[in-house]
Amino acid sequence: MKKINVGVVGAAGYSGEELLRLLFNHQFVEIKVITSRKYAGDHIGEVFPRFMEQSIKFSEPNVANIINECDVVFLALPHGLAAEYAKPFIEAGLKVIDISADFRLRSLEKYKEYYGCDHPAPELLSQAVYGLPEHYRNDIKESSLIASAGCYPTSILTPSIPLLKAGIVSSKNIIASSMSGVSGAGRKVAVDYIYPECNESARAYATIGHRHLPEIEQELAVAAGLDNIVINFIPHLVPLNRGINSTIIYDATRECSAEEVHSILSATYADEAFVRILPLGKQADIKHVSFTNICEIGVSYDARTKKIIITSVIDNLTKGASGQAVQSMNIIFNLNEKEGLL
Amino acid sequence: MKKINVGVVGAAGYSGEELLRLLFNHQFVEIKVITSRKYAGDHIGEVFPRFMEQSIKFSEPNVANIINECDVVFLALPHGLAAEYAKPFIEAGLKVIDISADFRLRSLEKYKEYYGCDHPAPELLSQAVYGLPEHYRNDIKESSLIASAGCYPTSILTPSIPLLKAGIVSSKNIIASSMSGVSGAGRKVAVDYIYPECNESARAYATIGHRHLPEIEQELAVAAGLDNIVINFIPHLVPLNRGINSTIIYDATRECSAEEVHSILSATYADEAFVRILPLGKQADIKHVSFTNICEIGVSYDARTKKIIITSVIDNLTKGASGQAVQSMNIIFNLNEKEGLL
Amino acid sequence: MKKINVGVVGAAGYSGEELLRLLFNHQFVEIKVITSRKYAGDHIGEVFPRFMEQSIKFSEPNVANIINECDVVFLALPHGLAAEYAKPFIEAGLKVIDISADFRLRSLEKYKEYYGCDHPAPELLSQAVYGLPEHYRNDIKESSLIASAGCYPTSILTPSIPLLKAGIVSSKNIIASSMSGVSGAGRKVAVDYIYPECNESARAYATIGHRHLPEIEQELAVAAGLDNIVINFIPHLVPLNRGINSTIIYDATRECSAEEVHSILSATYADEAFVRILPLGKQADIKHVSFTNICEIGVSYDARTKKIIITSVIDNLTKGASGQAVQSMNIIFNLNEKEGLL
Amino acid sequence: MKKINVGVVGAAGYSGEELLRLLFNHQFVEIKVITSRKYAGDHIGEVFPRFMEQSIKFSEPNVANIINECDVVFLALPHGLAAEYAKPFIEAGLKVIDISADFRLRSLEKYKEYYGCDHPAPELLSQAVYGLPEHYRNDIKESSLIASAGCYPTSILTPSIPLLKAGIVSSKNIIASSMSGVSGAGRKVAVDYIYPECNESARAYATIGHRHLPEIEQELAVAAGLDNIVINFIPHLVPLNRGINSTIIYDATRECSAEEVHSILSATYADEAFVRILPLGKQADIKHVSFTNICEIGVSYDARTKKIIITSVIDNLTKGASGQAVQSMNIIFNLNEKEGLL
Repeated sequence: MKKINVGVVGAAGYSGEELLRLLFNHQFVEIKVITSRKYAGDHIGEVFPRFMEQSIKFSEPNVANIINECDVVFLALPHGLAAEYAKPFIEAGLKVIDISADFRLRSLEKYKEYYGCDHPAPELLSQAVYGLPEHYRNDIKESSLIASAGCYPTSILTPSIPLLKAGIVSSKNIIASSMSGVSGAGRKVAVDYIYPECNESARAYATIGHRHLPEIEQELAVAAGLDNIVINFIPHLVPLNRGINSTIIYDATRECSAEEVHSILSATYADEAFVRILPLGKQADIKHVSFTNICEIGVSYDARTKKIIITSVIDNLTKGASGQAVQSMNIIFNLNEKEGLL
Repeated sequence: MKKINVGVVGAAGYSGEELLRLLFNHQFVEIKVITSRKYAGDHIGEVFPRFMEQSIKFSEPNVANIINECDVVFLALPHGLAAEYAKPFIEAGLKVIDISADFRLRSLEKYKEYYGCDHPAPELLSQAVYGLPEHYRNDIKESSLIASAGCYPTSILTPSIPLLKAGIVSSKNIIASSMSGVSGAGRKVAVDYIYPECNESARAYATIGHRHLPEIEQELAVAAGLDNIVINFIPHLVPLNRGINSTIIYDATRECSAEEVHSILSATYADEAFVRILPLGKQADIKHVSFTNICEIGVSYDARTKKIIITSVIDNLTKGASGQAVQSMNIIFNLNEKEGLL
Repeated sequence: MKKINVGVVGAAGYSGEELLRLLFNHQFVEIKVITSRKYAGDHIGEVFPRFMEQSIKFSEPNVANIINECDVVFLALPHGLAAEYAKPFIEAGLKVIDISADFRLRSLEKYKEYYGCDHPAPELLSQAVYGLPEHYRNDIKESSLIASAGCYPTSILTPSIPLLKAGIVSSKNIIASSMSGVSGAGRKVAVDYIYPECNESARAYATIGHRHLPEIEQELAVAAGLDNIVINFIPHLVPLNRGINSTIIYDATRECSAEEVHSILSATYADEAFVRILPLGKQADIKHVSFTNICEIGVSYDARTKKIIITSVIDNLTKGASGQAVQSMNIIFNLNEKEGLL
Repeated sequence: MKKINVGVVGAAGYSGEELLRLLFNHQFVEIKVITSRKYAGDHIGEVFPRFMEQSIKFSEPNVANIINECDVVFLALPHGLAAEYAKPFIEAGLKVIDISADFRLRSLEKYKEYYGCDHPAPELLSQAVYGLPEHYRNDIKESSLIASAGCYPTSILTPSIPLLKAGIVSSKNIIASSMSGVSGAGRKVAVDYIYPECNESARAYATIGHRHLPEIEQELAVAAGLDNIVINFIPHLVPLNRGINSTIIYDATRECSAEEVHSILSATYADEAFVRILPLGKQADIKHVSFTNICEIGVSYDARTKKIIITSVIDNLTKGASGQAVQSMNIIFNLNEKEGLL
């Protein structure tokens, strides 16, 4: 099989590193270009010693060059920047898989409200497909612009979409209390993220209005067939490198049982390689999924309060970012969806 | 001032170690007896090298001897055992401060339901005072049997009691999602708690029916003036040694604001040395309270969902166990409540 | 290509888990049997939820069955036990790759001195090849019994063998100060290894006479062409899951330079996929090699003291155990040595 | 007793925080001034929420004001800066306890070689006393300028000085392999110190020529009665917040035994509150000394190689910095040396 020629724009962060880890081991991929303004000219091994045996160098992001060399380009850039790059690539016929948040929101107002600026490429929004493959697989196959789903949203939407669709959970009163490892903040150099500030620490942040909130609510509303859903999403930072655990509490719409909830989720994901529904009585654990593309889900039901309690874990850098992006690439290029992800 | 003669029964676990750390530095305390069946005869430094310069040895728990030597005895024993020891000490006129769960529940049925056995000393229950000093200070002063509040309960009750009393939060729909460091499991030797199983891990457990649940619900009901409250309490294990973070989500009973919630809590705890209400916009962090007896509380209000969101942290071994027990001792013996705790 | 049928005896520890992780992803391997006395009958997902999607179960170790089913068997057993199992497998024509220490020492006296019992299968010793592929590749290819090199020894021998052979370091005064993550202790349930005893801790142990010492000295002596070498090897336990860092200090035999040392190591390992010599000025870091089969080496020279200082890191479960064992299997079966290891 | 009025210049780093923790609990101290250019005007609770209940604010460093208010000033500043501040304070009759490295080296050449600039106040050097109280207690009592000993040096010198003085270890071939928690790098915001770069990592750095090297060698030479000693000191960064473990390997000058080494150290430190010599067979562990001012020492002797192996641990922020500085203050002001340190 002819290899897919791949470019990665903004490859020097943690999502970039994870993407490169996956792509270097992907038998049908050849990485042609990796860019970083900061490290342009540096051999990859200087930035990521783990990749010292690879031969590629970082370059300045050169659009014409990428168009010449690549079939698909991953954008691992800050929001705002990603949208600017997407346009010329799409026009030139490349597939674009954006790991940033730029094309996830349908609403320009929400984008402005949560990201503090006008959307940089609103004309592209209608082409973008939300990159949660288990629920948008067919659209992904046809699209040239994938807005790969965010990390917290992936962990929350994966169990929530089937439960809302089944009507067993109310669209009101949904509460998602999540924990993320520190790589979730990116490779950001700030006092809050130095080791002694994070180790032996656990803290909530952005208890109201986290940037992932509108993305989660948008997709929950789609699943529920409603115009709008509002939830509480409360992220916490905990001392580990990789992983997200979301504990989600829903009002059951009627008397039910853990077995019933379990069977809805199991049926939905029976044929999915990357969603694991744990046996009843077991709860999701970040350590089960680290360095994998799997979303692992545990189910409980509290008959006293009529609440359904879901625990859902992913590796934020894999299923929550780069692994999911590769999964979308595999779909687009008609590969086995698991290629390079096991 | 004459020193208080203190005994610690079951001193070889983490609560025992923390209790000894505090008591060795307490200027009005003399530790007379520390017991451990496992380590009887061993110098304290063999079990806790940190205390090698101290001169005391572990002994078998000898009730007569403790009665002879001590004014107050701390019970740092598994539930069930504590109640058996309490009786002779109380009859002999000692003050008993129990760190176990044995005397926390008013209901014998709940005890049996959650602890799986009949209560070992039901005749003592009426004498027991719930050891949450900020809310039971006067009762503690008069009592000979303190059922020192549990770790998760302390973190949840401290913010919840004033909010329920003020009527600003509903008694329905309360959700407490908590995280605990691994010392919360005690010095238990089980595969689930070895380092590689806990590090780079985060997991919920006992999502339904944790043993601390009836204790929390009992005291919430007292605060609300109700017979009964049911809540969801979902504990998680996270990779740190010490600390609990409880994020609690309440339905507001009416339109309100973070400012209003903040002022209720600030007013309640204005004169308390061990409760810290953070300025608005800041969230509680375990690292702020480790090795202290402080409960730190952050406040948010989500006007979209009418939910009040509280983050509350303690050191599980200090305010959640041994520090709080010493605080009760200080009250009983008319000392400055902060003595030995700063 | 016909798949290699593989058995793993003693698959429920950390080395076993890592071996399964590698073998499940190895395109030329089919895992036929995994044994565990403790978990016999359990599906693999009950012991390692990470493998829930796999279909295999643990069974009692049944020698006849393994002989029927397998071409090669990995022994991930405690020392003593491994040697007993090896015999029937070898007689039946299977290849045996032993991850334990049972066949690493040439000297029965050393075995008895360090392991406290007579060697259980001395008649097999002459067949055993020391499983450090970079230095025993041709012997491994021909052998039916591989004594896969230990974790600390791999980290120390990889840089030391070429330096001794080159004569640039003295065989006297070698000091290896190593740090290991807690998985190095195996999945052992003991109070010393529970999370709160290891986190925020760092401690030396077995400062004299660690069991890996005779293995290291034996292979150093081979490299130096001497009957015997004595060194100081001082292991430490540090709070991380995976990885070993060995800092090794040698007396230079003559005035030299870091450049010279670097060129000796670079020349030796120029064609090796799994040894990385860092550029001068960089030091080895466990995080560069976690979840890889690479030994990464940093070089310094102190002209003031005439000491050569090497830092050498591996993942103790991969290059230090299961990855190295798979590397040997690849050699035996004429596969690309990197198969399944990248 | 009249309280000692204390100023802390540069109080916003980790050493500053630890100093404040100790001084707030010191019954004979009143903190009058804390300075920080960055946080001038901020309440202490904004920088260190742990101290929210304290009433002091950070101010710009105002020399005249500090002279007016204080009896003693601690300098917790970067090297270079400290020396500039010391001069006016000493001239005004204040006691100065410097936690930086500025006054530790007797040799201006070494200062320039290792710190890259001329010494900023060479005229003060002759007044400075090296702040290792166990060995310079009488000089500290009389001095106005304490160059408080560095963290790595404290861990290495405490066991080494008595052994060199006793002549049982050679001054040649001394090797110190140390590990430090990340707070040892200060509250420095750099990519190397963010959580995901340090967690699951362990790495050597500055294997040749660390800045603490000349300080260690200077004091070893004093102990040995020599003009000069050269050693190898190899520091490593490991994933914990607080603590240093130094493993030191010496050539014995003659046949000896662990018992003999142990008795030399035990005799030297028999009356010292802050040095703990472990029983033979036990090794030092960082967790035994965290949040204490103790240096804990373990002893081994390898008869095969004639090497004495010492493990020595401290809390880098307490005995390695601020606790030791308070110990010196207690000596200067004729207090019990343990005041505020237990």
